[in-house]
Amino acid sequence: MADNDSLSQFQASAVDAARKAGEIIRKAFYETKHVQHKGQVDLVTETDKACEELIFNHLKHLYPTHKFIGEETTAAFGTSELTDEPTWIVDPVDGTTNFVHGFPFVCVSIGLTIGKIPTVGVVYNSIIDELFTAIRGKDAFLNGNPIKVSAQTELITSLLATEAPTNRDKLSVDGCTNRINNLLFKVRSLRMSGSCAMNLCGIACGRLDVCFELGFGGPWDVAAGAVIIREAGGVVFDPSGADFDITSQRVAASNPFLKDALVDALRQAQ
Amino acid sequence: MADNDSLSQFQASAVDAARKAGEIIRKAFYETKHVQHKGQVDLVTETDKACEELIFNHLKHLYPTHKFIGEETTAAFGTSELTDEPTWIVDPVDGTTNFVHGFPFVCVSIGLTIGKIPTVGVVYNSIIDELFTAIRGKDAFLNGNPIKVSAQTELITSLLATEAPTNRDKLSVDGCTNRINNLLFKVRSLRMSGSCAMNLCGIACGRLDVCFELGFGGPWDVAAGAVIIREAGGVVFDPSGADFDITSQRVAASNPFLKDALVDALRQAQ
Repeated sequence: MADNDSLSQFQASAVDAARKAGEIIRKAFYETKHVQHKGQVDLVTETDKACEELIFNHLKHLYPTHKFIGEETTAAFGTSELTDEPTWIVDPVDGTTNFVHGFPFVCVSIGLTIGKIPTVGVVYNSIIDELFTAIRGKDAFLNGNPIKVSAQTELITSLLATEAPTNRDKLSVDGCTNRINNLLFKVRSLRMSGSCAMNLCGIACGRLDVCFELGFGGPWDVAAGAVIIREAGGVVFDPSGADFDITSQRVAASNPFLKDALVDALRQAQ
Repeated sequence: MADNDSLSQFQASAVDAARKAGEIIRKAFYETKHVQHKGQVDLVTETDKACEELIFNHLKHLYPTHKFIGEETTAAFGTSELTDEPTWIVDPVDGTTNFVHGFPFVCVSIGLTIGKIPTVGVVYNSIIDELFTAIRGKDAFLNGNPIKVSAQTELITSLLATEAPTNRDKLSVDGCTNRINNLLFKVRSLRMSGSCAMNLCGIACGRLDVCFELGFGGPWDVAAGAVIIREAGGVVFDPSGADFDITSQRVAASNPFLKDALVDALRQAQ
């Protein structure tokens, strides 16, 4: 088990990598981008690939025995199994569609799991210069300042975030809009930012109160955000109310007061 | 009719007022806010009122013969009629819910109509320091750099923005989610930022391709954005495809290529 000094070192290394990748993202943000299509509505750019390579090279050089799971390499070479070993789980550009269109919710997400537990989290939005960081048991920070989840206790005064499904089959779209329809009667308002990691960090710093997403890309979208939320006093769980499973492509999060109300509302929206 | 020198002076005055109000907003953004409830899901804060007073005082001192329409004064004293006189139309804090929750899509929106035509527009998001400006016939700018709408020609590769209705009666909510359901099969993705003025500026600078909103607050949400979009090469219209009416609480906007496709899609979504 890594000690606190090691964890601080791991976080510092992840921040270095995130800042370097963030610089590439920021420079490319206003340039014309060469876009490849994964599917009809999903996108991958040269910047994703360059940033993942940079981040992996940076961390592999420092921690050659660690394991690595990244969105781009997984897409290319198939799923990597999550083990108990220290494992860096990286989304080099979370919010790729935003990046391609120039919408400023774009971030690097770097999480480290140890014993499959999210232990270090770094999320960096280089466009609006927001760096979210957390180490398990050592609080969460935004640009170095401590952050806390909101104190909202009622769903009706809560700000909800979710996202349109990447898969646009009728079942997925109908499920999404049925949930939105049901929830719009129960919350203050709804935000869709296009970045799962930024939504999780939004819960952590209290600018959002509840969020959920089903059918997103993979563990790279949530590994960093999960530890950042927990260290900010929030809870991460399956939208059904069951325990959070980092590999399930399903996530919900809130402050501790709103979990039951959100789970109930989602159950009623089915 | 005002000449170009006057219009430049009007814009400079509006930028001064927007920056001063933006400073108040930015300082209050992270503080605890004293919230009054207009309705169940609408909010008004001391900051709204302080900013509207500051902006009106600033502009009335310089232009005592001009007319003024503002969200807060209209809410308090009833609707002001729009005439052909030079009229400042002001939303002191567009995205009030975002402001209250700390979600960073918050802006000052100051528009000037002459002969009922949006002629000067200033939108300032002081949280992420984005200043959008335009004068009719003289192009549009973001932080002093010229902006253009996107070059997307197909709805299926377009990023759409809309908002949840402020009124949460069943008719409004069902209408909203029916439109979203229909459109999710036709666009790349959907964003809901919580700020009508920021959505319009998003179209102007090409980070969004199409947007629409029905049943928003009033002309203060769209007066500035309308001229900024048009000067960036975009089009502003009624969601039905009819001419834009600044007093109608209905707006759609896009680059010129996507208007017909959006109008068709919205018609099919009814």
